[in-house]
Amino acid sequence: MEKLLVHKNSGLDILVKVKNIVIGGEEKVIISGPCSVEGYDTMHDIASGLKKIGVHILRGGAFKPRTSPYDFQGFMEEGLKTLKIVGDEFNMPIVTEVMDSKDIDLVLRYADMLQIGSRNMYNYSLLKEVGKLKTPILLKRGMSATLPEWLYAAEYIMANGNENVVLCERGIRTFDTYTRNTLDLSSVAAIKQKYRIPIVVDPSHGTGRRELVARMSLSSIAAGADGLMIESHITPDKAISDARQTVSIDTVGQIVKNVRKFDGMFRD
Amino acid sequence: MEKLLVHKNSGLDILVKVKNIVIGGEEKVIISGPCSVEGYDTMHDIASGLKKIGVHILRGGAFKPRTSPYDFQGFMEEGLKTLKIVGDEFNMPIVTEVMDSKDIDLVLRYADMLQIGSRNMYNYSLLKEVGKLKTPILLKRGMSATLPEWLYAAEYIMANGNENVVLCERGIRTFDTYTRNTLDLSSVAAIKQKYRIPIVVDPSHGTGRRELVARMSLSSIAAGADGLMIESHITPDKAISDARQTVSIDTVGQIVKNVRKFDGMFRD
Amino acid sequence: MEKLLVHKNSGLDILVKVKNIVIGGEEKVIISGPCSVEGYDTMHDIASGLKKIGVHILRGGAFKPRTSPYDFQGFMEEGLKTLKIVGDEFNMPIVTEVMDSKDIDLVLRYADMLQIGSRNMYNYSLLKEVGKLKTPILLKRGMSATLPEWLYAAEYIMANGNENVVLCERGIRTFDTYTRNTLDLSSVAAIKQKYRIPIVVDPSHGTGRRELVARMSLSSIAAGADGLMIESHITPDKAISDARQTVSIDTVGQIVKNVRKFDGMFRD
Amino acid sequence: MEKLLVHKNSGLDILVKVKNIVIGGEEKVIISGPCSVEGYDTMHDIASGLKKIGVHILRGGAFKPRTSPYDFQGFMEEGLKTLKIVGDEFNMPIVTEVMDSKDIDLVLRYADMLQIGSRNMYNYSLLKEVGKLKTPILLKRGMSATLPEWLYAAEYIMANGNENVVLCERGIRTFDTYTRNTLDLSSVAAIKQKYRIPIVVDPSHGTGRRELVARMSLSSIAAGADGLMIESHITPDKAISDARQTVSIDTVGQIVKNVRKFDGMFRD
Repeated sequence: MEKLLVHKNSGLDILVKVKNIVIGGEEKVIISGPCSVEGYDTMHDIASGLKKIGVHILRGGAFKPRTSPYDFQGFMEEGLKTLKIVGDEFNMPIVTEVMDSKDIDLVLRYADMLQIGSRNMYNYSLLKEVGKLKTPILLKRGMSATLPEWLYAAEYIMANGNENVVLCERGIRTFDTYTRNTLDLSSVAAIKQKYRIPIVVDPSHGTGRRELVARMSLSSIAAGADGLMIESHITPDKAISDARQTVSIDTVGQIVKNVRKFDGMFRD
Repeated sequence: MEKLLVHKNSGLDILVKVKNIVIGGEEKVIISGPCSVEGYDTMHDIASGLKKIGVHILRGGAFKPRTSPYDFQGFMEEGLKTLKIVGDEFNMPIVTEVMDSKDIDLVLRYADMLQIGSRNMYNYSLLKEVGKLKTPILLKRGMSATLPEWLYAAEYIMANGNENVVLCERGIRTFDTYTRNTLDLSSVAAIKQKYRIPIVVDPSHGTGRRELVARMSLSSIAAGADGLMIESHITPDKAISDARQTVSIDTVGQIVKNVRKFDGMFRD
Repeated sequence: MEKLLVHKNSGLDILVKVKNIVIGGEEKVIISGPCSVEGYDTMHDIASGLKKIGVHILRGGAFKPRTSPYDFQGFMEEGLKTLKIVGDEFNMPIVTEVMDSKDIDLVLRYADMLQIGSRNMYNYSLLKEVGKLKTPILLKRGMSATLPEWLYAAEYIMANGNENVVLCERGIRTFDTYTRNTLDLSSVAAIKQKYRIPIVVDPSHGTGRRELVARMSLSSIAAGADGLMIESHITPDKAISDARQTVSIDTVGQIVKNVRKFDGMFRD
Repeated sequence: MEKLLVHKNSGLDILVKVKNIVIGGEEKVIISGPCSVEGYDTMHDIASGLKKIGVHILRGGAFKPRTSPYDFQGFMEEGLKTLKIVGDEFNMPIVTEVMDSKDIDLVLRYADMLQIGSRNMYNYSLLKEVGKLKTPILLKRGMSATLPEWLYAAEYIMANGNENVVLCERGIRTFDTYTRNTLDLSSVAAIKQKYRIPIVVDPSHGTGRRELVARMSLSSIAAGADGLMIESHITPDKAISDARQTVSIDTVGQIVKNVRKFDGMFRD
């Protein structure tokens, strides 16, 4: 894979700017927010809390890929509007998932960064389309994607002209059922060594267990991650979706502190 | 899952008609053809051979989901045209993959059945769109999809109004590397017991090894499959893609004979 | 692996004689019995039923490898005695598991074939010890063993002098939880093509679901298996262990009939 | 599993003493040495280097579980002697693998801690036997063992009377082939939260790639590990086995420094 655009051989390490936030640079970047965008009041309180403790980017799902067609599918444009209003209010860039080429224009009216979810990592049509944009893309690893497959998915975006790609390790599917997925932190160390694109870790999906998120956040940063994406809520147990893996604002605050402490010590 | 449309509780077993061919009925259905649609002459010779030995449906990829953006991506509309001309010539219905909502109209002008590939099984936007059609859908299992996830994917299509769904088991991703994937034939037996939708098996992707295709075809039928999808070519070693798992027309002929022999003996 | 004793290059296909029963020859061999050996009366009734329907070899566990140290660990020598008495009564050879080198002599006093269980496939000390015997060995696949690892385990036995080895495919561990394990029937087809040692399939552990055993038995034979090992009981719901995957004597009878019917038609 | 001896409910956190070294206490413990014990001169130079940089325990394999019976199987008693001489010389306790009940007495004459390897984690006979000792046991995770299975394996040892058990996470087997195994650091965080037994991580087997060992060592400690086990050599490329994952003494030195730095900052 040494001739790919994603490879260090092809140029300098990539810095991805999401408005005023740089991913892949000196500072570790924290992305946080609820699994699904909820009503304005809840989103306002979450964002307010996250801003205070130093979170950089606000996340929230408006289009939700759900296993069952009968489950809540997200508030769609309504959710995007709420997300943008709150993001503007607290001067936080927002990232949200796009699931289909035909929704790109709509989502672009509100979002600062587009997320390609785990289920769409192999959706090459979608990858090619977002490759035509300049907007930063957060590319989650497919649930059973090998490292080369994941890097080639990034290459699909870059080969179409968009170098603003950030990878997101979110655990892989294995026989083990204790955690929702098996967080593969060796992949983070490997990618930082040989590839140009920044990588963040999502310990929320990676473990599926709230009580493991703080520990695995620190472990992810120690493996070399450029940042974290953490599902959080002011009242985690009341989150519309993924409550089991959602942490409180306080927990995110503790994580931010530990990341800074670690980063201060180990920055080269 | 007992309240789902896919469950036997919700109605009679589904028979899917692809032009004059019925999948899920008394006769086992054989789908065959090359991985990628090639030029007219090659397609003509393949279809001619397959028709003679009793193959029912012709397959061929015009839009190819490839791991690398630099690999051959299929002949697209050109390929669809070739496929349709040859299908008409030999009176064989054709099935081909659609990878994106925006291509549905184009592919529908040529194909009798739409394939949703393994990489798009979780592409819920695409599933909803093909759910609005009446065209038969061949839904391949995602490479790491659990049984419920796969059945819910079918439910996405059916809940939107299209009950013409056929499942296709094509192997799952495991630690084992001897075969390209691990063919999960127990899933076939399980689905035939509890669910209404027909299921066929693709032993070509399931094994990735030409020399195992005939044996595993018979094994699939013995597990209860309603049919088979087999990659074949007049000169397998010269196939544009997936040559390693492509068999000759003669091998397909032998498979057809064995399937009929088995079916004659074990039909209830 | 072409220079290994297990490879077809190294000699004729191996026929393993267990008393008067030949595994690997023309006739498919059926091994059946309860997961754990129970009391004499139950074992007598099970063996009596199995003998009548044509089962060749009687199985039953006396030493049971259990996940928890607090679970029932088998009746040990008491169980072996019961098994032998009943086997003699019905003139059925018996196969039972040995879990440790130090128990070999004890088990040999009663058993006609020694089973190396899935958990001990990598127990190379045990493999070397049974390699010094002439007694037939039933070598189950490790739950996450690759094909080469499994074949090398057989080679450990053969390299020490004992060529009487029969492999047993019993499913591998994957992300899928619908079935207890994922039965890998392609491994059976692959081994029959390139290796000299007979192979049987255990659809009971392979599926973990009683209702799938008959179907997957036929599918296994169609994949090329030389025989089957099936957990059965006169009152399956009352089996001491593995009740969920244990079938009735009647079901075994139906399987035997189907295997004969299939074998009669497809024998070359 | 809340009633198990391994659970925090059953008593204080366990401290395992290996001669003068305590695992599970305040200080992180570093175990290092070559995959296989080699000749005296090499072992002397390795131990000398490791002692200087602060490694606590010396490791080396004398009985080697190898996939092929034709591969080097270790120097056995000769290797144990060398290991003990060198350990005494540098006042370092030694840990080495025992593969069979019948070798326990022999290995006990030389070793301070017995390792149960990944392939023997389900070898319940062996677990029961080492459960009768007082010697500390290093219990590696089976390559496809679930968390409960691994904890029950520890319970087998403890239930027989030996509470001196240390777990060792060494990666699990998944579809991913970039790394030799997939290091499951969430298991470390989970075990530290709910169970009493210390746990160390083996990033050498966990990644199979020398260049990832230092990063993943730090990541392991950040996940909460009580220590590390690292394969090292004075001339890594000349190691008899596992050269690809063996690091230099200098690399171990760097790891020791980083671990101390981290530990100093984050100790509660």
